[in-house]
Amino acid sequence: MWMETKTEVEEVSRTRASFSRRVLNSVLLCTGDMEHFDKYMQDKWFVLQLAVWGLRGVTRVILANNPLSGTLILAALYWASPWQGLLGTLGVLASTLTAVIVGQDSAEVAGGLHGFNGMLVSLLMGVFSSAGDWYWWLLLPVCLGSATCVFLFSGLSTLLGHWDLPAAVFPFNIIIILYLLCTGENNPYFPHHPATPPGMLGPNVTELNAVQVMHGIPLGVGQIFACGALGPSLLILGAVVLYSPLLAIHALLGSAVGTLAGLSMAVRHVSLYSGLSGFNGALGCMVVGGLFFTFSWRIHLLAIASAFLSAYADIALSNLLGTVGLPACSWAATLIATLMLLLTGSLAAYRIPIGQVMAPERNLRSQGQWEAGNTEDRESTDV
Amino acid sequence: MWMETKTEVEEVSRTRASFSRRVLNSVLLCTGDMEHFDKYMQDKWFVLQLAVWGLRGVTRVILANNPLSGTLILAALYWASPWQGLLGTLGVLASTLTAVIVGQDSAEVAGGLHGFNGMLVSLLMGVFSSAGDWYWWLLLPVCLGSATCVFLFSGLSTLLGHWDLPAAVFPFNIIIILYLLCTGENNPYFPHHPATPPGMLGPNVTELNAVQVMHGIPLGVGQIFACGALGPSLLILGAVVLYSPLLAIHALLGSAVGTLAGLSMAVRHVSLYSGLSGFNGALGCMVVGGLFFTFSWRIHLLAIASAFLSAYADIALSNLLGTVGLPACSWAATLIATLMLLLTGSLAAYRIPIGQVMAPERNLRSQGQWEAGNTEDRESTDV
Amino acid sequence: MWMETKTEVEEVSRTRASFSRRVLNSVLLCTGDMEHFDKYMQDKWFVLQLAVWGLRGVTRVILANNPLSGTLILAALYWASPWQGLLGTLGVLASTLTAVIVGQDSAEVAGGLHGFNGMLVSLLMGVFSSAGDWYWWLLLPVCLGSATCVFLFSGLSTLLGHWDLPAAVFPFNIIIILYLLCTGENNPYFPHHPATPPGMLGPNVTELNAVQVMHGIPLGVGQIFACGALGPSLLILGAVVLYSPLLAIHALLGSAVGTLAGLSMAVRHVSLYSGLSGFNGALGCMVVGGLFFTFSWRIHLLAIASAFLSAYADIALSNLLGTVGLPACSWAATLIATLMLLLTGSLAAYRIPIGQVMAPERNLRSQGQWEAGNTEDRESTDV
Repeated sequence: MWMETKTEVEEVSRTRASFSRRVLNSVLLCTGDMEHFDKYMQDKWFVLQLAVWGLRGVTRVILANNPLSGTLILAALYWASPWQGLLGTLGVLASTLTAVIVGQDSAEVAGGLHGFNGMLVSLLMGVFSSAGDWYWWLLLPVCLGSATCVFLFSGLSTLLGHWDLPAAVFPFNIIIILYLLCTGENNPYFPHHPATPPGMLGPNVTELNAVQVMHGIPLGVGQIFACGALGPSLLILGAVVLYSPLLAIHALLGSAVGTLAGLSMAVRHVSLYSGLSGFNGALGCMVVGGLFFTFSWRIHLLAIASAFLSAYADIALSNLLGTVGLPACSWAATLIATLMLLLTGSLAAYRIPIGQVMAPERNLRSQGQWEAGNTEDRESTDV
Repeated sequence: MWMETKTEVEEVSRTRASFSRRVLNSVLLCTGDMEHFDKYMQDKWFVLQLAVWGLRGVTRVILANNPLSGTLILAALYWASPWQGLLGTLGVLASTLTAVIVGQDSAEVAGGLHGFNGMLVSLLMGVFSSAGDWYWWLLLPVCLGSATCVFLFSGLSTLLGHWDLPAAVFPFNIIIILYLLCTGENNPYFPHHPATPPGMLGPNVTELNAVQVMHGIPLGVGQIFACGALGPSLLILGAVVLYSPLLAIHALLGSAVGTLAGLSMAVRHVSLYSGLSGFNGALGCMVVGGLFFTFSWRIHLLAIASAFLSAYADIALSNLLGTVGLPACSWAATLIATLMLLLTGSLAAYRIPIGQVMAPERNLRSQGQWEAGNTEDRESTDV
Repeated sequence: MWMETKTEVEEVSRTRASFSRRVLNSVLLCTGDMEHFDKYMQDKWFVLQLAVWGLRGVTRVILANNPLSGTLILAALYWASPWQGLLGTLGVLASTLTAVIVGQDSAEVAGGLHGFNGMLVSLLMGVFSSAGDWYWWLLLPVCLGSATCVFLFSGLSTLLGHWDLPAAVFPFNIIIILYLLCTGENNPYFPHHPATPPGMLGPNVTELNAVQVMHGIPLGVGQIFACGALGPSLLILGAVVLYSPLLAIHALLGSAVGTLAGLSMAVRHVSLYSGLSGFNGALGCMVVGGLFFTFSWRIHLLAIASAFLSAYADIALSNLLGTVGLPACSWAATLIATLMLLLTGSLAAYRIPIGQVMAPERNLRSQGQWEAGNTEDRESTDV
């Protein structure tokens, strides 16, 4: 009897363990890059495939690559504003479809690399438009602008590929600036608000509200998608946690660093409260700390330095472009990230070639295997 | 008698056919790149050779390469304004001679590659000068500016050669902007008009004149040489037809696309009427549709896309540079053309290496021979 | 007796000759790049080594590389203004130390390549600050800005290394523009003067003072270190003579050319008097005439052309950046120098690879040996 009971208990506990292992496994299956999902989708309908490519494109904006995270982020955008959600969806689809038609590399298309610039262009066109929501004519420049991103992405990739640099969000930054310049403020068809430079309004008259500054930090993560509401911003942060907790930590850290940089330069309070001071810092921090470098303490410090540089460069560029009513978008973070990828010296050893970039947790593991492999190789060559 | 008559008739018809063939041949000899002419000129006087290099340089401005077209274009410029004609002649000679003295590659000099930037700089210096025609002191910056183009062309070729990109009209665009910035509007020696941005004057008060807009399309071709008169513009178009009818069609098409883009952005009516809205579109269309890509229907569509992008980018850059009183020149078309040459994916297969670029009709024929050759090669390797 | 006397005289004269030879040798030991000094310093304390690296960094600003010259220049800066001297010292140390910490190539650090940009950033921050001397908070941006130069230098070196181009003073020019943009004119913590464009004040009301214009020529050499006093400027010139007389001649010549260019464009008289018109010309002339090209008469002419181009480009860029209150720093000279290093054609044969650049006198000698070596090689291969 005793023996049997013991076996039963063992069996139950084994079943439980196996169940929790299965749950864990299926959770783990939904995190990281979800490459296995691509194999599963391989022989499905084109429309379904396109949806997955688009969702991957949505997450690429925030340096992730996971269709589930993409769903969460899209939900957050529709939650914040259905019109912005629609524009974003349209943008990512328009540019992904253009890439298919123009005949871009299919692996790139499937990885969502041709979607994120189009999405950002559409979202920012919507944010800066002064014609109000549901102004249907705006869909025309949204589709054309998103489609143009494919040409810029392809051309810039060739240009930057010489140094193994990604085209990143350069296409978005170029297209949105050209669009805003092209239409001008008083355009009869596509009017838009001018951007206000963060440091041009003189001293701030009101006192700084510490709680609102703290709110600005998670909002900085949402501002990567031009989203200024707290709830959706937290949902976006959750989507990043699903992809990679390390990346999410660096996003928050970078946003905090950006807010700090904004405080030290006495920028307008609105910039701090809305998270606009933080989002370049967040991007600059994520690129170094979570994506293109194998994580270590030295790289963590470099990520913080990168966040500070991105934030200060953003204030500088915002002041410059603000003189002609233009926003600095994510120029600062993109330029500083490109600079960091070009670094030589002992830090360059941590750099991951852009073809092998994956979720930071995977990068760490493959680095481990890789080093082990290297040691074996060395031993074998010694023999 | 009958037999004899028949033979006579046959002989007459044969003579006629041979005569018309000869005429056709000699006409064909004057079209395209006229490489045979170089051999003929090889042992002539230096002054004659320099004239031919200069005339080739004149046509390079509009992406052609034919001394006879160059003569027609120069005639058009002298017709429109003798002073502008003189400046253009001086500019092309100054920069070609500088290239000879500085010791640039002789094949490049003979192909007119060191003349066209100098010519454009001189023409634009004349157009923007507010000192009136026949202001002889202007010849000083004209000569120096044209000479400087050689240095920029040589340096930029090295820089861009890494991606098999041409230096194109970047030197002209840089030098003219620096010249206008250097002298400023109120310079006591070299005063100049400020440029008016196309979209900064608010809504247009007068009604649009459709006939004048239609006139703007051929004027857009003339504006490539900063020429705003209809007759000379048509002569310039004729010179392009002589070089390559396909190129001329794309020039007109691109100018029409540019005018359309201008209409859609509600630019100043003067921009549309004068052809200034069209010339960047024309250049953007010609580069893709007639020169650096083998012609096909996909490339034709890409050329139209390139024309639209060039035209919109021109409006954007004109608005930006107009805030400091500068013109956008052909920055837009040059940048978009460079982008198109960098494209990857299935469209890149149509790209012609810059060393093998010839008149589009020749490109088509050599592509045919090339493909035939390739097939043979493949067969022979299969065996 | 007679014989003995003669021997004595001979001995005395021999001793004298040997003494003067020794003096000459020890003087020669202090000129040029002083590589032997590095061997001597190899096993000394780190602080001493750091001092020598810093002093080399100080001279790198003016294209020299000699610790003694560095001492003279630092003395000149402290003479002109102790506060500026302190800022310069701090800047060069901060960026050199950052390079050591970040793990940059030790040969580059020892050559002072990571110090000069930091020094320039610090000096210019001090010059533009409107908070007066001994404003201790300024040390914060001075240290951070100097440290950032290391990242930019490293990244830009990778980027420009593809064409064997040096990163030169691009990092300084970028950082100082970003700093001035970031703080803005009315920043509560780090206020600064706006820059006045040289050509924007309309016609000059007072008559030109020829003596002051002549004074502007040596001041142009001092302005490379943002120093506007005559005595210290002459001491800086002396430091350059110690490194290489040929370089010093080109510095003066370039400054004169820059002043001439300023006169021809009717810039503000203050620009001419203070040497601000001359320093870009001086840099442009030194780069070509004394450093990156083997000296010859053709190169001498190219150096003068480079000085003219740098000076005119500086006026243009100053007018452009002056519209938003920014200085053009040494953008013009840096861009023109980069252009000259890219030149193709027969002039490119005189170009020295950046890894082999030394004092111009050494370059000439090694070029001689090199050509002799080449001839021998050719002979041996002929045999």
